Amino acid sequence: MPPSPQELVDRARAGEPVAVARLISMVENAGPQLREISAALSPHAGRAHVVGLTGSPGVGKSTSTSALVSELRARGRTVGVLAVDPSSPFSGGALLGDRVRMGEHADDDGVFIRSMATRGHLGGLSWATPQALRVLDAAGCDVVLIETVGVGQSEVEIVGLADSTVVLLAPGMGDGVQAAKAGILEIGDIFVVNKADRDGARRTVRELRNMLTLREGDGEVWEPPVLSTVAARCEGIDALADALDEHRAWSERSGERERRRRERSRREIEAIGMEQVRARMAQVRGGDGLNAVTERVLAGELDPWAAADTLLADAGG
Amino acid sequence: MPPSPQELVDRARAGEPVAVARLISMVENAGPQLREISAALSPHAGRAHVVGLTGSPGVGKSTSTSALVSELRARGRTVGVLAVDPSSPFSGGALLGDRVRMGEHADDDGVFIRSMATRGHLGGLSWATPQALRVLDAAGCDVVLIETVGVGQSEVEIVGLADSTVVLLAPGMGDGVQAAKAGILEIGDIFVVNKADRDGARRTVRELRNMLTLREGDGEVWEPPVLSTVAARCEGIDALADALDEHRAWSERSGERERRRRERSRREIEAIGMEQVRARMAQVRGGDGLNAVTERVLAGELDPWAAADTLLADAGG
Repeated sequence: MPPSPQELVDRARAGEPVAVARLISMVENAGPQLREISAALSPHAGRAHVVGLTGSPGVGKSTSTSALVSELRARGRTVGVLAVDPSSPFSGGALLGDRVRMGEHADDDGVFIRSMATRGHLGGLSWATPQALRVLDAAGCDVVLIETVGVGQSEVEIVGLADSTVVLLAPGMGDGVQAAKAGILEIGDIFVVNKADRDGARRTVRELRNMLTLREGDGEVWEPPVLSTVAARCEGIDALADALDEHRAWSERSGERERRRRERSRREIEAIGMEQVRARMAQVRGGDGLNAVTERVLAGELDPWAAADTLLADAGG
Repeated sequence: MPPSPQELVDRARAGEPVAVARLISMVENAGPQLREISAALSPHAGRAHVVGLTGSPGVGKSTSTSALVSELRARGRTVGVLAVDPSSPFSGGALLGDRVRMGEHADDDGVFIRSMATRGHLGGLSWATPQALRVLDAAGCDVVLIETVGVGQSEVEIVGLADSTVVLLAPGMGDGVQAAKAGILEIGDIFVVNKADRDGARRTVRELRNMLTLREGDGEVWEPPVLSTVAARCEGIDALADALDEHRAWSERSGERERRRRERSRREIEAIGMEQVRARMAQVRGGDGLNAVTERVLAGELDPWAAADTLLADAGG
């Protein structure tokens, strides 16, 4: 008999990596026990410092994540990593790629690393990420790092709701217009110019400082720092870890942490509600309801709104 | 009195750019007349060749789009362009950036260009893009180009459902692993190595050819061509336009066009249904329903699933 959700949650809380991995798979695949798992996890969640890391391809996100994990471990923190990679909608799996570099943490039982596939239905990311986060949080991770590519609205939204968001740039690549286009200037609490040994790093730092605006929370102001790192040599990573601690302290004082957690929770509830309805729509007429109304739209008998109404009514909504 | 949706649709079909722009704004903002507009557009849609263009930042998407527009215009086709840019979730607008380059087509009344913001609620892209596409299609565009950044699941999904999808790469940048990570190898019907005058272009072409797999439709096989262009000098764009015509002809013969249109329609209906439910959930208790259940989740009284159930029940679903 497979272990019950409660048993898995107990084992995950006791630090069993296999139980953690299994729970994440179960929530990611939206298995039948998702609800039970969520209920078993909820009382133990809410303690972790949720850190979002984002940046364009090539700025050194994985190297930075790995270096930050080492630094946090040296400070005695347990760390969870959720790497949200765009993956193929067809092959259906997240490619390993530079995840391999995380191999140096493979034998450390204070670190959990998980690549999330972003495949699947509408709002896949918004749906699965909070669930996987809750697993790592309940399993006792002090810090959970969510690493995403900083392009694409859903990724930006998720990372922007972390307790602290780190935006990574590299000299030359991270010029202002590109960063502004990707919408990542507004979401960063801490900015890091990685590969700071390259030409142009100082100019990038200066440009960034000019473009940034202060954050406010309950009368307290947060001035996003712009740090320089060479993650491949672990240079500047201690300052990044310090900045994260400072931001966390500010967030708690200013009420910003509370505000973001409330917004994360709102969005999760909304996403679950929509997913429930999607699942119900998919079951109409033994799974053929959507096909049936689609044919009527293609035949010009219904417009898409009328088709959606019909489907929703049949789904009991 | 503002013009009725039917009147705007008639004017758009007569080629009035102002009416086209107004209709797209109305559908993008999900205004109250969305449904009426959709019904008025539907009988006139379904004729355009929908072409997706995607690629990482910096491969020259906008330049290529602009060059392709010129080539298609020289062939006597009317063209619509939907540029789907990641935009700020905070400032709420698509930045102009390199859209400016499209200025050369500004005086051509056979071209409609529109930047779409990807801001907004869950599934924003999946929701607004088919609506805007329908406007351009019904307005009589022979070809509608949808340009997106090829990173991020929702963008990949949308472009992958175009009648024909062009994946752009640049030498050095477009190496295999990055392209495979972004999930764009599987969705391309035509591959273009732009900036082909740079070092390494031939190697990129060769690598791509090795990684590509054939497509099949109803017994007919499509071998995705790998073309070389220098879009900034309009080199190779005629071959791209030819390849698009060939792919369209193949798609019609093989049933692939029909299959993709059916899938696009399915997803649109699903997205509309979910959006309807989201809107209803947002109205529960005069707009305070989601806040109320969120507070109960934060207080540990409800788990997120139970909260979503409560909200859905109150939303009459």
